[in-house]
Amino acid sequence: MYPIITISREFGSGGHSIGKAVAEALGIPFYDSEIVNKAAEVSGYTKDFIEQHGENTSGLDQWLYGGAFAAGYVKSPQDEIFRVQSRIILDYAQQGPCVIVGRCADYILERRNVPSLNILIHADMEHRKARILERYGNNDVPVERRIRTKDKGRQAYYRYYTDRKWGNYMHYHLSLDSGFLGEETCVKMIVDLAKKMDAE
Amino acid sequence: MYPIITISREFGSGGHSIGKAVAEALGIPFYDSEIVNKAAEVSGYTKDFIEQHGENTSGLDQWLYGGAFAAGYVKSPQDEIFRVQSRIILDYAQQGPCVIVGRCADYILERRNVPSLNILIHADMEHRKARILERYGNNDVPVERRIRTKDKGRQAYYRYYTDRKWGNYMHYHLSLDSGFLGEETCVKMIVDLAKKMDAE
Repeated sequence: MYPIITISREFGSGGHSIGKAVAEALGIPFYDSEIVNKAAEVSGYTKDFIEQHGENTSGLDQWLYGGAFAAGYVKSPQDEIFRVQSRIILDYAQQGPCVIVGRCADYILERRNVPSLNILIHADMEHRKARILERYGNNDVPVERRIRTKDKGRQAYYRYYTDRKWGNYMHYHLSLDSGFLGEETCVKMIVDLAKKMDAE
Repeated sequence: MYPIITISREFGSGGHSIGKAVAEALGIPFYDSEIVNKAAEVSGYTKDFIEQHGENTSGLDQWLYGGAFAAGYVKSPQDEIFRVQSRIILDYAQQGPCVIVGRCADYILERRNVPSLNILIHADMEHRKARILERYGNNDVPVERRIRTKDKGRQAYYRYYTDRKWGNYMHYHLSLDSGFLGEETCVKMIVDLAKKMDAE
């Protein structure tokens, strides 16, 4: 059987596209924004709200959710979204091999002893800037700042819910520099590996 | 042409064996302890001394080499070994594709704009303990402590000479968990990649 594949990625590294291409090549489901849609359905929060709070922690979040929420008096919306998303991820995983992008999926599955192949996709800033500009175009905020802000938010979120450092090599079975290797090579390496694991 | 391949590795992760097998499969030279032998020849220090100081920094080293040496009044033996090893590594790289293990080779080549494929090999503690016991057997020091001490020394050495953190995913094009993937799969992935780069 193919493994369940989790993909952690730097913003602009192409992790989404790589994961999608891997899922297509293997003929297994792919979950990224699908998790947001599902979480919106289940929780009653809007997709926008979930997108904002379901993988990012901003300074504002920390301030808003820091006091009464942290003390456990009230459940913060962010905690609720994490809980809902975790259940969705575990449900997906139970249905069989799939590719899941972001949202601490590596940690969530590990905690429940669900085996997964955990992959990190990263790239140097130049490649990421070019990619973001190509996909989303320019806006008022300089592209490098957009990238750093997004990464910081995701890393803080990961740290908050997993108590470990995002990007620590120890937590990934395979880390790929998509800027150096190219997206196609990354896809091929992951697909070949999944097929090898299937054959064993 | 095959790339020059540098391998950084955790102690006990099998980085040496993997690098050696890759070099054999590609028919290119492999340099690990060869660097020590060569450095002994060139510098006049004994192999033992170079092995102790050519990739490890201990607290004692830092204390010994911290004062007058750091201030530049006297060249520390460690600095001299670093300089000699750097020149050896650059010489090897100039002769063509090869595999070089450890000794900040990734950084040394990058600083001179010599392109290389930089790989990190790591594994969980259980796999590393088993591997070290199998290869070197038991001694007075508990195996986990031996592993941690060795890694710490190498990391401090890397930090000292490169001013960057050992193991930061950003500095590797490919990071592999040899405990999870198995040595054979690691070798195959690297060989396939080198062949692909050769064909491009």
